[in-house]
Formats: sequence, structure tokens, C-alpha cells
Amino acid sequence: MAAVGKPLLFGYFRSSCTWRVRIALALKGIEYDQHPVNLIKDGGQQLADEYKRVNPMLQVPALRIDGVTLSQSLAIIEYLEETRPSPALLPRDPVQRARCRIISDHITSGIQPLQNLAVLKRVGEGSQEWAQHFIRRGFQALEQLLQETAGRYCVGDEVTMADLCLVPQVANADRFKVDMSPYPTISRINQSLMELETFQVSHPSRQPDTPPELKA
Amino acid sequence: MAAVGKPLLFGYFRSSCTWRVRIALALKGIEYDQHPVNLIKDGGQQLADEYKRVNPMLQVPALRIDGVTLSQSLAIIEYLEETRPSPALLPRDPVQRARCRIISDHITSGIQPLQNLAVLKRVGEGSQEWAQHFIRRGFQALEQLLQETAGRYCVGDEVTMADLCLVPQVANADRFKVDMSPYPTISRINQSLMELETFQVSHPSRQPDTPPELKA
Repeated sequence: MAAVGKPLLFGYFRSSCTWRVRIALALKGIEYDQHPVNLIKDGGQQLADEYKRVNPMLQVPALRIDGVTLSQSLAIIEYLEETRPSPALLPRDPVQRARCRIISDHITSGIQPLQNLAVLKRVGEGSQEWAQHFIRRGFQALEQLLQETAGRYCVGDEVTMADLCLVPQVANADRFKVDMSPYPTISRINQSLMELETFQVSHPSRQPDTPPELKA
Repeated sequence: MAAVGKPLLFGYFRSSCTWRVRIALALKGIEYDQHPVNLIKDGGQQLADEYKRVNPMLQVPALRIDGVTLSQSLAIIEYLEETRPSPALLPRDPVQRARCRIISDHITSGIQPLQNLAVLKRVGEGSQEWAQHFIRRGFQALEQLLQETAGRYCVGDEVTMADLCLVPQVANADRFKVDMSPYPTISRINQSLMELETFQVSHPSRQPDTPPELKA
């Protein structure tokens, strides 16, 4: 596997799936360039022919790395973990690894897809309530699960893949004005994570394509 | 890690997420017992307090194995792969592994969640068209991706995790009467996979909780 230049991340400052990958790259200390893809402008630049050649899934993120272009945030993170194992984003014990993946999949399959832009467009009227409903349903289960797995972070006291999914989803909940008081464990972990430099530099408010009025 | 009796799968014959795990167990030659959870009866047995103690996510599948209970189909499959590596469900090469996970995540995050029972109930009127829309959108991208990765199966000529996601999703497409003619690669791979004994015994028509009128 030849390293071919600096990795290039195709993403959008506000996309929670892109944010997950930005945190992974920051935690692993991988330098990369960004190619912003604006999901709003021109009816969605991810739908343009130019981007279709990058990622036929027409979604962000995509990461050009090691001479290939990968999509799907968790697949990208697992690839980074396998090719650049240190620092680890998954524990060594198989059951603990499973717990990280359960939390990650719960967020990335059970919550985020139901409140993403394309789905809410399709919902139309009442889309805010729709998003709130599915975030609340997902957080209720997640809160219970975390009570069994959490230490300082989602699974024990080390940052794992699960945490990379948690923080962007909490930010989405905030955007959709979900009352977080029923989820003290989620809120507490989110707060601990947001104290970390790697999560701060990856934040949507600090990206090259962040509009000036939203810059931190 | 002590092996504690035979693994017990909590699932539903028609659940595509449960089906993925049944195929994994069959391919790895793992004997297991089934505990059916009827998603329709009694307003959904997965919502009952009894099941909440098994899986706070209130979803099937859940697998009790090695003294723990795991949920989320892909997390379960990755756990089986790590603890029972042979036969492998992921290739050895990191890029090929990533391709398997991209296809798997695309189906499990990008398609299935948008056409599952709870979501379609919430959609109400027009739910069939809703499901068709998101399956078609997902299959269009998947067809293109598979043209780059497929051999006899989704990634090359060996059965991988991606195939475990593909077959149940094609069955869902069939239930929602999606015209499959624009997706010749998906259809061809599905057909090849359905010739395999492991996929046949895992089929919804051959489970302990399959209603008599749907039994194969």
C-alpha cells in the first residue's frame, strides 16, 4: 500500500458524519487536506457529476487516502484503525470492542439516518418534530446502554469510536432543540469529550468552509 | 472468556437485521438456539419489559453469547469475526475490508433504517412509496459501487459481511415491490448467494417462528 500524498477529506462543515472522521484523523494525528462539498448550495454539490466520480453514493464524507477513495464514516474509521492502529480507537477486548460498535451503530444506523437532510426534505411539514421523535427514541435507549458501559467516556475511560459518533449526534440534537435533561449520562460524556483539543479543532465552527457568521 | 452454553439469538423470522446474523452464524458453523420476538403481536413484543431487560434498544436481533448479550447486527457479526475468525467474513487486505464495510454500512445505515417497521408506521399514508423511494435511491448507488468491487459476490469471489447485508435487503425490496431491472449486478449477486445452503437455511421462510402459511 503506497502512501500517495496527504489524505484528502471531502466533507461539509456541518455534516455530523464528516465530523466523526475529522475527530478520528485528529486523534490519530493524521494531517489532511479538506475539499468542501456544500450540501445546500447549487441544490447540493454532492449530487453534481463532479462529485459522483469521487463517491457514487453522493454523500459526504469521502476520504482519499493510500491511493483509494473510501466512503461511509465508520468504514473509514475502521480502515484508519487497521492501517494506523496507534492511538487505538477500539479497545483490545472483543466484548469491549463490540460495545463500542453497538453504540456507534446505534447512532449511525438508528438515529442519524432518520434526521439527515435528505430525509427531512422528504418529510416536509413537521420535519422538526420528526427529527426530535427519532433522536429522543434513540437517546432513551442510548442513555440506558451507556449506564452499563460508560466510564469517563462512552466505553470506559479511553476515547473510542463510540465517542466519535456521540458528540456530533448531540450537536444535531441541539440543532433540533431536543431537551437533553432526560439524558444526563449522554450530556456528561459529551461535556467531557468537548474539553478535548481533538474534538474542538474538529468542530463544525472551525472548518475551512464554516461561514464567517458561524465561525468560533 | 468462558463459553456459557449454546448462543441464543433473539430475533424475528422476517427481520432483515436478524437474517444477517443468522447467515453469519450458519457460515461460521455456530450452533445456536432461537428465542422468537414477534414484532407485530401484542403491539410488538420487542417493546415489552421482559425484552427490555435483554436489549434496552428494544430491537432485534440480540445475541446472547460468551456470557454477554450483544445487539446491532454488524457489531454482532464483527464480534463473531474477531472471536471465531474461521471461515472469515472479511478479507485480509485493509482496502478490501473497507469495501466490505462500505457496502454493509451503506445498506444498514443508508437503506434499511428508512424502510423499517417503526419508521413506516410513523410515515403512515404513502409508506409503500416512501420505502420504494429510499430503496431505489440506495440501490442506484449500490449498483454503481458493486460494478467496481464485485466478483461472484459483493467483494470478489468469497462471501463477506457485505453479502450478509445484501440478500436480506433485496428481499425487503421484493416485499415493497421495487422494480429490480435497473440493478442487474445486485440481482445477479443475490441469485448466486441464494444458491448457497447457508443462505437458504437462514431464510425467513425456514425459521421456528415462520407462520405455517409462509413456510418453505
